[in-house]
Amino acid sequence: MDSAPLSWLDEVSWNNEGLVPAVAQEQGSGRVLTLAWMNRESLSLSVQEGRAVYWSRSRRKIWRKGEESGHVQIIKEVRLDCDKDTILLTVTQQGGIACHTGRHSCFYQTLEGGVWRVAEPVIQDPGEFYKQK
Amino acid sequence: MDSAPLSWLDEVSWNNEGLVPAVAQEQGSGRVLTLAWMNRESLSLSVQEGRAVYWSRSRRKIWRKGEESGHVQIIKEVRLDCDKDTILLTVTQQGGIACHTGRHSCFYQTLEGGVWRVAEPVIQDPGEFYKQK
Repeated sequence: MDSAPLSWLDEVSWNNEGLVPAVAQEQGSGRVLTLAWMNRESLSLSVQEGRAVYWSRSRRKIWRKGEESGHVQIIKEVRLDCDKDTILLTVTQQGGIACHTGRHSCFYQTLEGGVWRVAEPVIQDPGEFYKQK
Repeated sequence: MDSAPLSWLDEVSWNNEGLVPAVAQEQGSGRVLTLAWMNRESLSLSVQEGRAVYWSRSRRKIWRKGEESGHVQIIKEVRLDCDKDTILLTVTQQGGIACHTGRHSCFYQTLEGGVWRVAEPVIQDPGEFYKQK
Protein backbone atom coordinates (compact mmCIF):
# COMPACT_ATOMS: atom_id res chain seq x y z
CA MET A 1 0.00 0.00 0.00
CA ASP A 2 1.15 3.50 -0.72
CA SER A 3 1.54 5.77 2.24
CA ALA A 4 -0.75 8.77 2.37
CA PRO A 5 0.59 11.80 0.53
CA LEU A 6 2.17 14.47 2.66
CA SER A 7 -0.48 17.01 3.52
CA TRP A 8 0.25 20.71 3.22
CA LEU A 9 -0.65 20.79 6.91
CA ASP A 10 2.21 18.43 7.69
CA GLU A 11 4.64 20.86 6.13
CA VAL A 12 3.86 23.57 8.67
CA SER A 13 6.35 23.72 11.51
CA TRP A 14 4.08 23.81 14.55
CA ASN A 15 5.64 24.95 17.82
CA ASN A 16 5.82 22.75 20.91
CA GLU A 17 2.23 23.72 21.73
CA GLY A 18 1.09 22.76 18.24
CA LEU A 19 0.59 26.40 17.22
CA VAL A 20 1.83 28.95 14.69
CA PRO A 21 1.26 32.72 14.64
CA ALA A 22 -1.02 33.93 11.85
CA VAL A 23 -0.86 37.53 10.67
CA ALA A 24 -3.95 38.92 8.92
CA GLN A 25 -3.36 41.69 6.40
CA GLU A 26 -6.21 43.57 4.78
CA GLN A 27 -6.55 43.31 1.03
CA GLY A 28 -6.46 46.70 -0.62
CA SER A 29 -5.31 48.83 2.29
CA GLY A 30 -2.44 46.50 3.15
CA ARG A 31 -3.06 47.20 6.83
CA VAL A 32 -1.87 44.59 9.28
CA LEU A 33 -5.00 43.93 11.32
CA THR A 34 -4.30 41.13 13.77
CA LEU A 35 -1.90 38.50 14.94
CA ALA A 36 -3.60 35.42 16.34
CA TRP A 37 -2.69 31.77 16.71
CA MET A 38 -3.66 28.67 14.79
CA ASN A 39 -3.37 24.99 15.49
CA ARG A 40 -3.63 22.35 12.81
CA GLU A 41 -7.41 22.09 13.10
CA SER A 42 -7.99 25.84 12.92
CA LEU A 43 -5.76 26.26 9.87
CA SER A 44 -7.52 23.38 8.17
CA LEU A 45 -10.92 24.88 9.01
CA SER A 46 -9.79 28.31 7.81
CA VAL A 47 -9.01 26.92 4.39
CA GLN A 48 -12.14 24.76 4.25
CA GLU A 49 -14.43 27.60 5.30
CA GLY A 50 -12.64 30.50 3.62
CA ARG A 51 -12.65 32.52 6.82
CA ALA A 52 -10.09 32.99 9.57
CA VAL A 53 -10.45 30.40 12.30
CA TYR A 54 -7.98 30.70 15.16
CA TRP A 55 -7.06 28.86 18.32
CA SER A 56 -7.90 30.94 21.36
CA ARG A 57 -5.05 30.42 23.80
CA SER A 58 -6.98 32.04 26.66
CA ARG A 59 -10.19 30.08 26.12
CA ARG A 60 -8.37 27.00 24.81
CA LYS A 61 -10.80 26.41 22.00
CA ILE A 62 -11.39 26.95 18.32
CA TRP A 63 -12.39 30.55 17.67
CA ARG A 64 -14.12 31.52 14.44
CA LYS A 65 -13.08 35.17 14.21
CA GLY A 66 -16.27 37.22 14.19
CA GLU A 67 -18.46 34.49 15.66
CA GLU A 68 -19.71 36.92 18.30
CA SER A 69 -18.91 40.33 16.84
CA GLY A 70 -19.73 39.63 13.20
CA HIS A 71 -16.27 40.86 12.29
CA VAL A 72 -15.41 37.89 10.11
CA GLN A 73 -12.15 37.81 8.17
CA ILE A 74 -12.75 36.42 4.67
CA ILE A 75 -9.59 34.76 3.38
CA LYS A 76 -8.27 35.71 -0.04
CA GLU A 77 -4.82 34.13 0.17
CA VAL A 78 -2.80 31.98 2.57
CA ARG A 79 0.97 32.29 2.71
CA LEU A 80 3.71 30.49 4.64
CA ASP A 81 7.12 31.90 5.46
CA CYS A 82 10.55 30.46 4.73
CA ASP A 83 10.83 28.73 8.11
CA LYS A 84 7.30 27.35 7.70
CA ASP A 85 6.37 28.56 11.15
CA THR A 86 4.29 31.67 10.41
CA ILE A 87 1.11 32.11 8.35
CA LEU A 88 0.16 35.29 6.52
CA LEU A 89 -3.48 35.68 5.51
CA THR A 90 -4.74 38.24 3.05
CA VAL A 91 -8.29 39.03 4.15
CA THR A 92 -11.23 41.29 3.75
CA GLN A 93 -12.41 42.50 7.13
CA GLN A 94 -16.17 42.46 7.55
CA GLY A 95 -17.43 45.54 9.34
CA GLY A 96 -14.05 47.22 8.89
CA ILE A 97 -13.22 46.39 12.51
CA ALA A 98 -10.64 43.76 13.40
CA CYS A 99 -10.00 44.71 17.02
CA HIS A 100 -12.13 43.81 20.04
CA THR A 101 -11.72 47.45 21.15
CA GLY A 102 -13.74 48.57 18.12
CA ARG A 103 -10.79 49.80 16.09
CA HIS A 104 -9.88 48.97 12.51
CA SER A 105 -6.58 47.30 13.44
CA CYS A 106 -5.29 45.82 16.69
CA PHE A 107 -2.02 47.71 16.16
CA TYR A 108 -3.31 51.08 17.27
CA GLN A 109 -0.61 52.02 19.76
CA THR A 110 2.53 53.75 18.50
CA LEU A 111 5.74 54.41 20.38
CA GLU A 112 6.36 58.15 20.57
CA GLY A 113 9.02 59.64 22.82
CA GLY A 114 9.16 56.59 25.04
CA VAL A 115 5.39 56.33 25.51
CA TRP A 116 2.78 54.13 23.84
CA ARG A 117 0.15 56.45 22.40
CA VAL A 118 -3.23 55.52 21.01
CA ALA A 119 -3.10 56.47 17.34
CA GLU A 120 -6.45 55.24 16.01
CA PRO A 121 -10.05 55.95 16.89
CA VAL A 122 -12.68 53.56 18.10
CA ILE A 123 -15.04 53.10 15.16
CA GLN A 124 -17.77 51.35 17.08
CA ASP A 125 -18.31 50.76 20.80
CA PRO A 126 -17.62 47.09 21.50
CA GLY A 127 -20.76 47.01 23.64
CA GLU A 128 -22.70 47.29 20.42
CA PHE A 129 -21.22 44.24 18.78
CA TYR A 130 -20.56 42.03 21.80
CA LYS A 131 -24.15 41.76 22.83
CA GLN A 132 -23.45 38.86 25.21
CA LYS A 133 -20.90 40.79 27.22
CA MET B 1 12.10 58.10 47.27
CA ASP B 2 9.93 57.96 44.22
CA SER B 3 9.79 54.68 42.42
CA ALA B 4 11.10 54.62 38.87
CA PRO B 5 8.51 55.52 36.24
CA LEU B 6 6.96 52.62 34.37
CA SER B 7 8.97 52.02 31.25
CA TRP B 8 7.25 51.46 27.91
CA LEU B 9 9.15 48.16 27.93
CA ASP B 10 7.36 47.11 31.12
CA GLU B 11 4.03 47.53 29.37
CA VAL B 12 4.80 44.84 26.83
CA SER B 13 3.30 41.47 27.68
CA TRP B 14 6.29 39.15 27.24
CA ASN B 15 5.54 35.44 26.94
CA ASN B 16 6.86 32.85 29.37
CA GLU B 17 10.15 32.82 27.47
CA GLY B 18 10.39 36.60 27.70
CA LEU B 19 9.63 37.06 24.00
CA VAL B 20 7.07 38.67 21.69
CA PRO B 21 6.61 38.20 17.94
CA ALA B 22 7.56 41.23 15.84
CA VAL B 23 6.12 41.66 12.35
CA ALA B 24 8.09 43.86 9.92
CA GLN B 25 6.08 45.62 7.24
CA GLU B 26 7.73 47.55 4.44
CA GLN B 27 7.00 51.25 4.23
CA GLY B 28 5.53 52.19 0.89
CA SER B 29 4.81 48.73 -0.53
CA GLY B 30 3.03 47.59 2.62
CA ARG B 31 4.51 44.13 2.13
CA VAL B 32 4.83 41.97 5.20
CA LEU B 33 8.48 40.97 5.10
CA THR B 34 9.29 38.97 8.21
CA LEU B 35 8.11 37.72 11.55
CA ALA B 36 10.87 37.36 14.10
CA TRP B 37 11.10 37.44 17.89
CA MET B 38 12.22 40.05 20.35
CA ASN B 39 13.12 39.97 23.99
CA ARG B 40 13.25 43.06 26.15
CA GLU B 41 16.87 43.80 25.30
CA SER B 42 16.38 43.44 21.55
CA LEU B 43 13.32 45.69 21.52
CA SER B 44 15.17 48.28 23.57
CA LEU B 45 18.16 48.08 21.21
CA SER B 46 15.87 48.31 18.17
CA VAL B 47 14.49 51.61 19.39
CA GLN B 48 17.88 52.95 20.50
CA GLU B 49 19.58 52.04 17.22
CA GLY B 50 16.68 52.63 14.83
CA ARG B 51 17.13 49.24 13.22
CA ALA B 52 15.47 45.89 13.81
CA VAL B 53 17.27 43.84 16.44
CA TYR B 54 15.78 40.45 17.17
CA TRP B 55 16.37 37.54 19.50
CA SER B 56 17.49 34.51 17.56
CA ARG B 57 15.73 31.56 19.12
CA SER B 58 17.93 29.05 17.30
CA ARG B 59 21.24 30.71 18.15
CA ARG B 60 19.97 32.03 21.48
CA LYS B 61 21.51 35.43 21.05
CA ILE B 62 20.81 38.99 20.00
CA TRP B 63 20.60 39.22 16.23
CA ARG B 64 20.98 42.55 14.48
CA LYS B 65 19.04 41.86 11.30
CA GLY B 66 21.43 42.32 8.41
CA GLU B 67 24.60 41.98 10.48
CA GLU B 68 25.90 39.34 8.05
CA SER B 69 23.83 39.94 4.93
CA GLY B 70 23.69 43.72 4.99
CA HIS B 71 19.91 43.47 4.77
CA VAL B 72 19.25 45.85 7.62
CA GLN B 73 15.70 46.90 8.48
CA ILE B 74 15.56 50.62 9.28
CA ILE B 75 12.70 51.32 11.67
CA LYS B 76 10.21 54.06 10.83
CA GLU B 77 7.53 53.24 13.37
CA VAL B 78 6.94 50.83 16.25
CA ARG B 79 3.43 49.69 17.10
CA LEU B 80 1.96 47.47 19.79
CA ASP B 81 -1.29 45.55 19.57
CA CYS B 82 -4.30 45.63 21.88
CA ASP B 83 -3.10 42.66 23.93
CA LYS B 84 0.38 44.20 24.15
CA ASP B 85 1.94 40.95 23.07
CA THR B 86 2.83 41.63 19.44
CA ILE B 87 5.02 44.32 17.87
CA LEU B 88 4.52 45.75 14.38
CA LEU B 89 7.47 47.56 12.82
CA THR B 90 7.24 49.76 9.77
CA VAL B 91 10.63 49.50 8.07
CA THR B 92 12.63 50.23 5.01
CA GLN B 93 14.42 47.10 3.85
CA GLN B 94 18.01 47.67 2.80
CA GLY B 95 18.91 45.74 -0.32
CA GLY B 96 15.23 45.02 -0.96
CA ILE B 97 15.76 41.51 0.43
CA ALA B 98 14.33 40.48 3.78
CA CYS B 99 14.59 36.70 3.42
CA HIS B 100 17.67 34.54 3.93
CA THR B 101 16.68 32.73 0.72
CA GLY B 102 17.35 35.92 -1.25
CA ARG B 103 13.71 36.86 -1.74
CA HIS B 104 12.03 40.17 -1.03
CA SER B 105 9.70 38.75 1.63
CA CYS B 106 9.87 35.60 3.74
CA PHE B 107 6.22 34.95 2.87
CA TYR B 108 6.87 33.60 -0.63
CA GLN B 109 4.86 30.38 -0.45
CA THR B 110 1.16 30.47 -1.30
CA LEU B 111 -1.38 27.73 -0.78
CA GLU B 112 -2.88 26.72 -4.12
CA GLY B 113 -5.03 23.64 -4.55
CA GLY B 114 -3.71 22.04 -1.39
CA VAL B 115 -0.04 22.60 -2.21
CA TRP B 116 2.43 25.25 -1.06
CA ARG B 117 3.82 26.89 -4.18
CA VAL B 118 6.76 29.24 -4.44
CA ALA B 119 5.30 32.50 -5.68
CA GLU B 120 8.29 34.83 -5.62
CA PRO B 121 11.68 34.81 -7.29
CA VAL B 122 15.09 34.76 -5.68
CA ILE B 123 16.48 38.26 -6.23
CA GLN B 124 20.03 37.45 -5.20
CA ASP B 125 21.78 34.15 -4.46
CA PRO B 126 22.30 33.96 -0.66
CA GLY B 127 25.85 32.74 -1.33
CA GLU B 128 26.60 36.24 -2.48
CA PHE B 129 25.53 37.97 0.68
CA TYR B 130 26.37 35.31 3.29
CA LYS B 131 30.05 35.29 2.61
CA GLN B 132 30.80 33.28 5.74
CA LYS B 133 28.49 30.40 4.77
